[in-house]
Amino acid sequence: MGEANIGLKPIDAEEFRKHAHEMVDFIADYYRDIESFPVRSQVSQPGYLKTLLPAAAPEDPETLEEVFADIQSKIIPGVTHWQSPNFFGYYPSNSSTAGLLGEMLSAGLNIVGFSWITSPAATELETIVLDWLAKLLKLPDEFLFGGNGGGVIQGTASEAVAVVLLAARTRAISENKRKGLSEAEILSKLAVYTSDQTHSCLQKGCVIAGIPLENLVTVPTDISTNYAVSPAAMRQALEDGVKQGLLPFFLCGTVGTTSSSAVDPLSALGDIAKDFGMWFHVDAAYAGSACICPEFRHHLDGVEKADSFNMNAHKWLLTNFDCSALWVKESSHLVSALSTTPEFLRNKASDLNQVVDYKDWQIPLGRRFRSLKLWFVMRMNGASGLRSYIRNHVCLAKRFEGFVREDPRFQLLVPRTFGLICFRLKPESDDPDNGRTLNSTLLEALNSSGRMFITHTVLSGVYTLRMAIGAPLTQDKHVDAAWKLIQEEATTLFEINLVKGPSHILANNLCSKNLNT
Amino acid sequence: MGEANIGLKPIDAEEFRKHAHEMVDFIADYYRDIESFPVRSQVSQPGYLKTLLPAAAPEDPETLEEVFADIQSKIIPGVTHWQSPNFFGYYPSNSSTAGLLGEMLSAGLNIVGFSWITSPAATELETIVLDWLAKLLKLPDEFLFGGNGGGVIQGTASEAVAVVLLAARTRAISENKRKGLSEAEILSKLAVYTSDQTHSCLQKGCVIAGIPLENLVTVPTDISTNYAVSPAAMRQALEDGVKQGLLPFFLCGTVGTTSSSAVDPLSALGDIAKDFGMWFHVDAAYAGSACICPEFRHHLDGVEKADSFNMNAHKWLLTNFDCSALWVKESSHLVSALSTTPEFLRNKASDLNQVVDYKDWQIPLGRRFRSLKLWFVMRMNGASGLRSYIRNHVCLAKRFEGFVREDPRFQLLVPRTFGLICFRLKPESDDPDNGRTLNSTLLEALNSSGRMFITHTVLSGVYTLRMAIGAPLTQDKHVDAAWKLIQEEATTLFEINLVKGPSHILANNLCSKNLNT
Repeated sequence: MGEANIGLKPIDAEEFRKHAHEMVDFIADYYRDIESFPVRSQVSQPGYLKTLLPAAAPEDPETLEEVFADIQSKIIPGVTHWQSPNFFGYYPSNSSTAGLLGEMLSAGLNIVGFSWITSPAATELETIVLDWLAKLLKLPDEFLFGGNGGGVIQGTASEAVAVVLLAARTRAISENKRKGLSEAEILSKLAVYTSDQTHSCLQKGCVIAGIPLENLVTVPTDISTNYAVSPAAMRQALEDGVKQGLLPFFLCGTVGTTSSSAVDPLSALGDIAKDFGMWFHVDAAYAGSACICPEFRHHLDGVEKADSFNMNAHKWLLTNFDCSALWVKESSHLVSALSTTPEFLRNKASDLNQVVDYKDWQIPLGRRFRSLKLWFVMRMNGASGLRSYIRNHVCLAKRFEGFVREDPRFQLLVPRTFGLICFRLKPESDDPDNGRTLNSTLLEALNSSGRMFITHTVLSGVYTLRMAIGAPLTQDKHVDAAWKLIQEEATTLFEINLVKGPSHILANNLCSKNLNT
Repeated sequence: MGEANIGLKPIDAEEFRKHAHEMVDFIADYYRDIESFPVRSQVSQPGYLKTLLPAAAPEDPETLEEVFADIQSKIIPGVTHWQSPNFFGYYPSNSSTAGLLGEMLSAGLNIVGFSWITSPAATELETIVLDWLAKLLKLPDEFLFGGNGGGVIQGTASEAVAVVLLAARTRAISENKRKGLSEAEILSKLAVYTSDQTHSCLQKGCVIAGIPLENLVTVPTDISTNYAVSPAAMRQALEDGVKQGLLPFFLCGTVGTTSSSAVDPLSALGDIAKDFGMWFHVDAAYAGSACICPEFRHHLDGVEKADSFNMNAHKWLLTNFDCSALWVKESSHLVSALSTTPEFLRNKASDLNQVVDYKDWQIPLGRRFRSLKLWFVMRMNGASGLRSYIRNHVCLAKRFEGFVREDPRFQLLVPRTFGLICFRLKPESDDPDNGRTLNSTLLEALNSSGRMFITHTVLSGVYTLRMAIGAPLTQDKHVDAAWKLIQEEATTLFEINLVKGPSHILANNLCSKNLNT
């Protein structure tokens, strides 16, 4: 039996201490040097890593030094640097000292907090920090613990909308059964209403929940409302749907759409949802963070009419990915939809119904101690620090918006509201694809330069560049340099007769030019 | 505009370095001292933390020292120590030096790897390490990349079974539509088959996917097969279901059930699934790790007939939570079910269909760089180290099994296969609840002592104690001490006239007694 004592010690405190100090220095050096890396990975050949790594795990242990060497030479070149101050793509995904410390501690304790009993501190800290954040956002009291509501940390806004969709579905099935409909009939007619700007995670949620996609009704939007949904159009769509026999049960509004940061009129949508007996969900994944500032809070007006509200602290509130905060007014709807309690998970505290068991508020069973990082972020920055952080980015975004307005070659596609600027290089009036090639070429030239990274969308059929300012280290000089580069690339583009050469060769030329400057 | 440069620097490399070194020492000290903490949190009053923390976030930043002080005095007492060598509850959730280093780096880079382009290294390393792990498990080549299959890291086994259930549902709907059935009719008849020992995550998956729970058919098991499902009973249930008009589409087998580590006969189930045209999923969340050892690999025989296979590297393979590895033979089924591609996520590499975009293999859109920790674990331990690690625990479990067999007051409920021992204190033959009170009292006495932590289940109606040996630091001395404590508590229980006093008072007495020893 002695052999049982022999063998590796998978976590020796002193070995961990030594190696983890090395890792801290590696990460600190990474942030120190982050501007030296091309923002978008310069790897262009899919499968690059397979040619660099062995085909199988090593039989014998390797040293941390060997792993670090591979990270430097093989992994880092394949990383797109979301924390670079020159990352302006998608929406940001914030890291911070506080968030990282919270991640470290969470991984260190490595508890699995599915039920209260599996670590009371994990559940309780989560309830407390979500109350804190709800108060920073001035959410109505019904979203706080103490009554029937409360908050929970999901991984992503996709999971958040999926769980409330499931809760709403369960409620709707139950209500319609009472009216004498069969479950199969109900499921085939349940309908979801939203705008055509709503994030694709709602569509995915419908697929998951078995809502037929033809019952996902997306109301068109346009520039006349800055891509916010029109309450009149929404009401009309609902009336049409009901006439066709649909059972509308879920309405989703967005504060800060992904394409253009549009803000739906929550209050009007809330009234409509009430009139039709629907669950009203508000997705503020991106722009929710801004609403901790009084000057932005009005964008949430009407949230008091919502059944659920979601924002991603991992996007723009310095909390490392993942941390998507979801609040509901009636948590019992989540529990009705998602609770399972096999014998092996039963315990006295749960049986007495005295505690929150977050396993019943989410899709997975297991869950990490994610509230720690949010707690670290709120404490080490303070509410005032977080507000300054948001305001800095918004100020930078205003600055960039001003640059675009001043250069007649460019066009703003929609007024800026938060940290996102939607713009493009104006095409010639006879441009056959209305600027798509022109601007996608510009995008590729910028991104392959490695000096900045932006992404695109399409608004009313127009190919649009998205400059999302919100990386933790972004300052004036980065925004200024980005604009200078954009102007230079635009100049180059107009100098070259675009129609003559294939665009990928053009992009490569631009790339080389920039890399040589 | 100058104010934009002023304000906090949310991640300053040198400030991070200083603070993160402190955090490393905090975590290293935690592991050094881990045996000094009561294993199960001694917090008994739900809401304890609310009385200790402020009701709102601080307005101004606080120092790391203030946060650390609260962690020591307020958080740690509320933590149940899953990494304690005396944690034997549920199934283990492993931490390790390598896993922690990987977590740190993943949090440090903080990329969001939903598409290949968002960090090619993240997607590619994941494909490579899942191939590595598949080879360690000797999975058939169809589960590896290079053909139509491949692996993906999910958060949990719940998410893994949910996504394959959705993939199978999409396939089944499409197949049955071709036979002329309507979608509503199909959805109401789709049926899932499994054993009554299958984890509750399958039930939750059915709820999510809109499979009516009456169409989740659980075939009963008993001790005659050690709680493995009988192929004959499964086939009979399927034939009955088909006669009743059900459309069986998903069969789930388990290698290492949660209650008792039962192993379903995969090969026979695979044949049955094929006969009925069903998707065959194998859940080896717990015991999959053991199958990297040749002496356990036979438990996976038949996996070559499966459509999907899942094991949790975060349970018993030293990879910090969460890391649930899922392999499929035909990844196109996942993509068909789960893909959404809004304009703002389009990019050249994805449009050319040259790359894996893992967003289409999972429920969330965003995803962390989780392959790093699995890569660290395989490299820093080596295949030989991982096998030794498993063997050490199995050896300890054999040792404990021997202890139970030697004490006539105790009874093994089912033979041990991996690291779990199911046992109980034998009740008197006239015990009105057949040992439930006796053993739940023993369980509570052990857990409230703080000296060890186990959980329970029910097998064939019998309340059963589960001793799951698999925490990273567990050695002979911990297993021996646990057994000694169990014996002592049993002696105490038999000395007291159990029927006289209410059990919670008894438990409290026992708790105090132990705390004073």
